[in-house]
Amino acid sequence: MIVTLTTDFGLRDGYVAAMKGAMLRRAGKRAAALRLVDVTHEVPAQDVMAAAFVLAQAAPQFPEGTVHLAVVDPGVGTDRRGIAAEFQLGGRPYRFVGPDNGVLPLLLNEAEPDAVVSLDRPAAWGVPEPSATFHGRDVFGPVAAALAAGAALGDVGSPVDRLTPMHWPLPRVDEQGVDGMVVHIDRYGNCVTNITRDDIERYAGGRPFKCYVGAGVIPRSARSYGHVEAGEPLTLFGSTGHLEVAVNGGNAAALLSVARGASVNLIFEAAPRPAPARLAPTGAQP
Amino acid sequence: MIVTLTTDFGLRDGYVAAMKGAMLRRAGKRAAALRLVDVTHEVPAQDVMAAAFVLAQAAPQFPEGTVHLAVVDPGVGTDRRGIAAEFQLGGRPYRFVGPDNGVLPLLLNEAEPDAVVSLDRPAAWGVPEPSATFHGRDVFGPVAAALAAGAALGDVGSPVDRLTPMHWPLPRVDEQGVDGMVVHIDRYGNCVTNITRDDIERYAGGRPFKCYVGAGVIPRSARSYGHVEAGEPLTLFGSTGHLEVAVNGGNAAALLSVARGASVNLIFEAAPRPAPARLAPTGAQP
Amino acid sequence: MIVTLTTDFGLRDGYVAAMKGAMLRRAGKRAAALRLVDVTHEVPAQDVMAAAFVLAQAAPQFPEGTVHLAVVDPGVGTDRRGIAAEFQLGGRPYRFVGPDNGVLPLLLNEAEPDAVVSLDRPAAWGVPEPSATFHGRDVFGPVAAALAAGAALGDVGSPVDRLTPMHWPLPRVDEQGVDGMVVHIDRYGNCVTNITRDDIERYAGGRPFKCYVGAGVIPRSARSYGHVEAGEPLTLFGSTGHLEVAVNGGNAAALLSVARGASVNLIFEAAPRPAPARLAPTGAQP
Repeated sequence: MIVTLTTDFGLRDGYVAAMKGAMLRRAGKRAAALRLVDVTHEVPAQDVMAAAFVLAQAAPQFPEGTVHLAVVDPGVGTDRRGIAAEFQLGGRPYRFVGPDNGVLPLLLNEAEPDAVVSLDRPAAWGVPEPSATFHGRDVFGPVAAALAAGAALGDVGSPVDRLTPMHWPLPRVDEQGVDGMVVHIDRYGNCVTNITRDDIERYAGGRPFKCYVGAGVIPRSARSYGHVEAGEPLTLFGSTGHLEVAVNGGNAAALLSVARGASVNLIFEAAPRPAPARLAPTGAQP
Repeated sequence: MIVTLTTDFGLRDGYVAAMKGAMLRRAGKRAAALRLVDVTHEVPAQDVMAAAFVLAQAAPQFPEGTVHLAVVDPGVGTDRRGIAAEFQLGGRPYRFVGPDNGVLPLLLNEAEPDAVVSLDRPAAWGVPEPSATFHGRDVFGPVAAALAAGAALGDVGSPVDRLTPMHWPLPRVDEQGVDGMVVHIDRYGNCVTNITRDDIERYAGGRPFKCYVGAGVIPRSARSYGHVEAGEPLTLFGSTGHLEVAVNGGNAAALLSVARGASVNLIFEAAPRPAPARLAPTGAQP
Repeated sequence: MIVTLTTDFGLRDGYVAAMKGAMLRRAGKRAAALRLVDVTHEVPAQDVMAAAFVLAQAAPQFPEGTVHLAVVDPGVGTDRRGIAAEFQLGGRPYRFVGPDNGVLPLLLNEAEPDAVVSLDRPAAWGVPEPSATFHGRDVFGPVAAALAAGAALGDVGSPVDRLTPMHWPLPRVDEQGVDGMVVHIDRYGNCVTNITRDDIERYAGGRPFKCYVGAGVIPRSARSYGHVEAGEPLTLFGSTGHLEVAVNGGNAAALLSVARGASVNLIFEAAPRPAPARLAPTGAQP
């Protein structure tokens, strides 16, 4: 009975607690068994793609059955649809509740959900007449609490065929290299790209690469930050498998003047350098 | 056994966790049943009115019996009184613990609490000799935990007659319009005023109004943000029933140069515009 | 079954929730009894000393048996060691999990832990092959959850003899006064020093002192903020027993231009002022 919460409500207002209060009230006698885990409430205001990115970092770690509630809702009060869904991630079944504005398709990354319903059952909401501006409190939160407490998708809505689509920007890859972009800058200033290990391995054939991004050319790949000198930039594959640009002990985004959306270009070298010479001094990854 | 927490402790120090630890220790064997829900810890330092505003957004959503703990305490270590109280909000009974510095009267908004005690029983505190600077940890938190674990008001203090009074600034309303103010700016830059729907309906008689605030004149009211064009300002009634100044997809406070405390003037039009012509294109509220 | 969490992960990314999800998954059927309490996730990036300072504010308040998980980990992915430990604080037994980079010795402040193991048992981790960049999620969090769920130190690692040492900078004290430093600036701008009440009492013999710090000379000591006029600076002993420089109702760090690391000099007066004359007007502490 876990519900995770991802919103752009911030932590200075009472919005997050109002939603949690409504969820606990909705859970009634089962409230004691309802665990609420914040993913983040600091999604940039109305930034659906950022919400999906951050939720994707955390969602697959949770136990099966977890309900992921994501409310970044620029269309609140219009006729945009609210949804609940069942889906798989990393082989585990989860559920999703939120506005139908792209977060779930981005989280699924082109995979299909197992089932989706439109939240058209007022009996499942927190109140019969929701505020026009706060469906997190009046609709989505209570529905997520109801699912966590044992309700089925069919108890909270009617089946729908398709989600509002949304896609991650994909890198272009060929035998010369990769054209990608920075999709997220984390708290440390690490610049997470849309380039995966598979994108590189498919065409590079083991060749090392140089990475051009912002004000920098980064000649070194390594397994982790501490495998290069303090203050030195590197590329590495981060904890979700994406290529990151980082600086050991420093803030790569600041040092290299990189913002979200910046281009990232990898140029594969002409031929693979001999593996031992490359691996030994840098701790570069095998 | 829910306790909500509203403080100005911030999230960078160990103060919030120190208070929670003391609460869990005080709850002893009943700690497992004690649920702690953060409202916010980002109240501006020593800003009692902001604490009350944010708590008022969240408090009425919680299940009955919830203890609302609010510690914004510029007078800590002086002879200011600590209190616990029982009160009603939206027809549900709640309890309050905190310094007697105005948060509870503001939360009650002129209503009377059912009972108030002064926290004069050291046996109910976390330690017999509280720190002179941290009663959240040593007094208020443990008392809130004790109440949540089943203690009665009489177990933690002696009855007192009256609270230190504090009042929300009220708007002035007549048949020409309303003179109010911005009492809160939320995470999105929405400017929440002290003007309620009732203030307007009492005198406007259905007439539309223009809203003058900061650098803007806002001609449009709507039901929610998405009922006006992106980037367009509007007024609407927010999720707690107060008039808000907002910008669809934007930050009204920044765009209109509005700070907390700014004047907000509504001028009622001479006669009501015909309802259908107004409602159809804007989604304005009925 | 409490685990506290202290990290530099920040609250904008999914890292904290990813770690919590992995902990809940690791706890399995005992997840419902696992309570996760955030100390802070806003430790400045890779600042081990700040992590220890903030954890030390909170840790001793928790019930016995609490597991304190602290992940500020600039050396992640290198051969730095991960540890779990049993230790005492204020007479209560606790456990610690995190990288062996100084947080635990700083928390213990020269005391010895009861037992320490190196986290060399992959079976206790969350996954058999941890990410090179996120041991909080893949190793430390799951190990902390396992300990909270009943595992013994011997289940998660092999005994080690000594920790990587780290020490708080100590003040120099003699009969003229104290040379110390600011080790932390809190949310209110209070400047917490490395000078304890004992440091002063040992040599001052009851003499009052002047405090020189940043742009200020502070002639007054008091029991708490409200014992001096609004806007007036003072020194006091804070809630963890350290001397603090504060301003009643104001931000001492900003007003006095004090940053972390700044020198703090106390000059004892030539002879004690008569106690009654000193106590009455200032509320200074006995």
